Amino acid sequence: MLEKQIQIYKETRKKIIAYQYYDWVVGWDQETEAPKGAQNYRLQQIEVMANETYKVSSDEQYMNAIEYLHENLNDLSDEDFKTEVKKVYKDLRFIKKIPKEEYIDYQVLIASGPQIWAEAKQKNDFSIFEPTLEKIVQYNRKIVKYLETDDLKGYDVLLDLYEEGMTVKKYDHFFELIKTELVPFVMTVTKNNKEKFNRKLTKGIYPKLEQEKFSKYLLEVFNFDLDHGVLKESEHPFTSNVSNQDVRITTRYHEDILISSIFSTIHELGHALYEMQTDSKYNDTFLRGGSSLGIHESQSRLYENMIGRSFIFWEQHYKQLVNLFPKQLKGISVTEFYKFVNQAKRSLIRIEADELTYPLHVLVRYEIEKSLINGKLKVKDLPRKWRLLMSKYVGKRPITDKEGVLQDIHWSFGSIGYFPTYALGSAYAAQLYHFMNEEINVEQAIENNNISLINDWLKEHIHKHAQSKTPQELMLIATKEPFNPKYYMDYLKKKFGTPNA
Amino acid sequence: MLEKQIQIYKETRKKIIAYQYYDWVVGWDQETEAPKGAQNYRLQQIEVMANETYKVSSDEQYMNAIEYLHENLNDLSDEDFKTEVKKVYKDLRFIKKIPKEEYIDYQVLIASGPQIWAEAKQKNDFSIFEPTLEKIVQYNRKIVKYLETDDLKGYDVLLDLYEEGMTVKKYDHFFELIKTELVPFVMTVTKNNKEKFNRKLTKGIYPKLEQEKFSKYLLEVFNFDLDHGVLKESEHPFTSNVSNQDVRITTRYHEDILISSIFSTIHELGHALYEMQTDSKYNDTFLRGGSSLGIHESQSRLYENMIGRSFIFWEQHYKQLVNLFPKQLKGISVTEFYKFVNQAKRSLIRIEADELTYPLHVLVRYEIEKSLINGKLKVKDLPRKWRLLMSKYVGKRPITDKEGVLQDIHWSFGSIGYFPTYALGSAYAAQLYHFMNEEINVEQAIENNNISLINDWLKEHIHKHAQSKTPQELMLIATKEPFNPKYYMDYLKKKFGTPNA
Repeated sequence: MLEKQIQIYKETRKKIIAYQYYDWVVGWDQETEAPKGAQNYRLQQIEVMANETYKVSSDEQYMNAIEYLHENLNDLSDEDFKTEVKKVYKDLRFIKKIPKEEYIDYQVLIASGPQIWAEAKQKNDFSIFEPTLEKIVQYNRKIVKYLETDDLKGYDVLLDLYEEGMTVKKYDHFFELIKTELVPFVMTVTKNNKEKFNRKLTKGIYPKLEQEKFSKYLLEVFNFDLDHGVLKESEHPFTSNVSNQDVRITTRYHEDILISSIFSTIHELGHALYEMQTDSKYNDTFLRGGSSLGIHESQSRLYENMIGRSFIFWEQHYKQLVNLFPKQLKGISVTEFYKFVNQAKRSLIRIEADELTYPLHVLVRYEIEKSLINGKLKVKDLPRKWRLLMSKYVGKRPITDKEGVLQDIHWSFGSIGYFPTYALGSAYAAQLYHFMNEEINVEQAIENNNISLINDWLKEHIHKHAQSKTPQELMLIATKEPFNPKYYMDYLKKKFGTPNA
Repeated sequence: MLEKQIQIYKETRKKIIAYQYYDWVVGWDQETEAPKGAQNYRLQQIEVMANETYKVSSDEQYMNAIEYLHENLNDLSDEDFKTEVKKVYKDLRFIKKIPKEEYIDYQVLIASGPQIWAEAKQKNDFSIFEPTLEKIVQYNRKIVKYLETDDLKGYDVLLDLYEEGMTVKKYDHFFELIKTELVPFVMTVTKNNKEKFNRKLTKGIYPKLEQEKFSKYLLEVFNFDLDHGVLKESEHPFTSNVSNQDVRITTRYHEDILISSIFSTIHELGHALYEMQTDSKYNDTFLRGGSSLGIHESQSRLYENMIGRSFIFWEQHYKQLVNLFPKQLKGISVTEFYKFVNQAKRSLIRIEADELTYPLHVLVRYEIEKSLINGKLKVKDLPRKWRLLMSKYVGKRPITDKEGVLQDIHWSFGSIGYFPTYALGSAYAAQLYHFMNEEINVEQAIENNNISLINDWLKEHIHKHAQSKTPQELMLIATKEPFNPKYYMDYLKKKFGTPNA
């Protein structure tokens, strides 16, 4: 009986993974390649396939097999398989508790969301996006009702979807620290902040072709395996994959902002290296891929900020940049460049925010999502609330919605509860970086252009485990301590508190 | 009952079209984007999805509905729908007569074929490809046995798959004309041929970036709709789509051969315009897309050769090319350039062959395929036979297999019976061009950079009909005559027989 159930489970899993692969390619194509006019036709096909995929994933035999295996967990000998069964059993909630029609309707809704959001953003008109966002919020509130348990209530349910184990209570504690320690710290730092960098850096034009060359150079520096990876361009940089065999990243090139593509590329490289270094044994299972969004973001932030924005990194690689942009960077020293890429400044746009002010942008979103889900905030009042909280926490008030509530794509594809993981990720990264330094000489590795030493440490302590460990377990494995936001506060205060080299 | 059967049919059709869409995107991705190392993982998913697609397409209710509708054709009022039912009824053969396991095995085989072929070609080693090709030929011979009817025997079965209505008998007649009229004509023309073009044209280096700009310029000239289309790069140029909503072409850039990308782009544009101009009412039916490979090729050849290689075309657009390559083209007149792009020369590679010698390359493949399928030629003897026939018909004998039997990808993805449509397409094109000239002033349209006049004529007479007409019907609609290869012979003899302007 057990063998039979395992077989049923594995056969269906194989199918689901194939559907996911196809779905992934279509999604990648949509974001990076498909012509605009094909949108409606594609949505039609996506609707049909969402139905087909649902059918396979909700096959009764398959669901029964999962329940049987979960009831007989102790008879399973393989630890990974046990973990997987627990995971898929938990995921069964979606099918068992959410009516199918609602599920399909929602898939269609969020497939069209990003295009509607993009139009609203482009036209700087929240009212274009409002009805869609209203539906998305209402659906998420319904989800919450369907999925609530004794332990998880309200917004907790969504937070747990994106970062297992995190709750309003835990995030409140984390963001309270940001509110009480970081908000005043940032106000002080940015108040006294004189511009320390060479103004010439904001004035040059940096042709895309050369920026592309530098992105490719970075792929080499970080050991990105092009035999299993792709670098492409898209409006919003992202990393995308469904196994460790084919990991794709995008970046964007602004000819008037050199560092935009550089740090986008390194950021996505962090995500990509994580995925590439997961153990191949998980590829055909539901334990493949990164453990959580927070852990994922910890990797991208660690590579982007702790390595990519370090002085020692630019001591090695600045000359390469100067080779590509000899005129534009003439007379600018590596120290000036370093200061430029580490300036702390209150600003309106999250994805352009620096390392120090970044978590304040997340704080704004966290409070908004919390009150959207508990019903205290209405979608129509969002733009006003956004301006209010930006003033309060970031100390900067947007005039337009384009640079305010419409700046981020996430809600348009249904993700509520996702944003907090961005700040959490930076905090994880600080803790990881601290402990990694106790075991290997990170600075020397960067100095010797030997990033693989860092890659290897992260592979061993984080990456290879894929989803076989929870975020909490990974932090324990890698740092021998539970998550502790104090490392993050210490790190930021040290980096931005005293004048840098 | 009829309504019910129509409903079943249409619901399943909707699903199949969605699976085809997903499959198409995965195929496009494979050809243009996916990293090499992901091949095995992808093949695994393709195998599973081939099975899933098969299940949907061979659903008993669906097949019964088709049979019912076919038996009750006269009760259907919509002419297009009748045509569609006849078509899908004919296609049922594949499912009813070919055992499922063989079908799936073959899908997997031909999914991996191109990569094996590419390796063999790269290493110039036929033995790497031989076992795979042997399996492909054997499968095709089995297909023939499964699908033979009273009217279609042997190779006929395959020919009919790619060009409905064409048989060995008809092709023999066509190729006989090529053998008796064109082979000696080519020998004469190319014997006395002194190089008429400026040698400088073969010596320059033409940077890819500028070639890309010219390709984009061509998209505009030919009215390619980028809102429903994509231009990308791939090793082998091709056109790909599953509706008129999203039509994608690729081209390739050789920095030492300027005209390679130019004529690849125009050729694929011809295919793409056909697909883009099919009537939208067919998008959700199995009558969407071009009527046949031969008709398709007639469009690409007409745009490439009759428009793109005409003197009048270059009179309009040569200055644009000179703007992009001022040094490389300095001192070269439009007349010299025109002669250069129209030189007739015996050569080894089909895709690089000129308009005049091209059909001879197809003749070689036609004779080989015929004897592979009737068992007179063994796969292992292919390289020898290839060299023999090339000497005989083209007057040029390849030394290596890379420039011989391994040059084309087609057999590696299972296409036997496809090649003859290339020559047929050129012949259709000559006939179409002849009659189009009787109705509109083609040269003036080119001269006024008003290609849409030509596009419109072709849309009206060929494109819009999609698959609702057979190739024979389309030739009748457009030229008021059945297919007649004499127009092709006349065209070639006129263009290449006397010294050109």
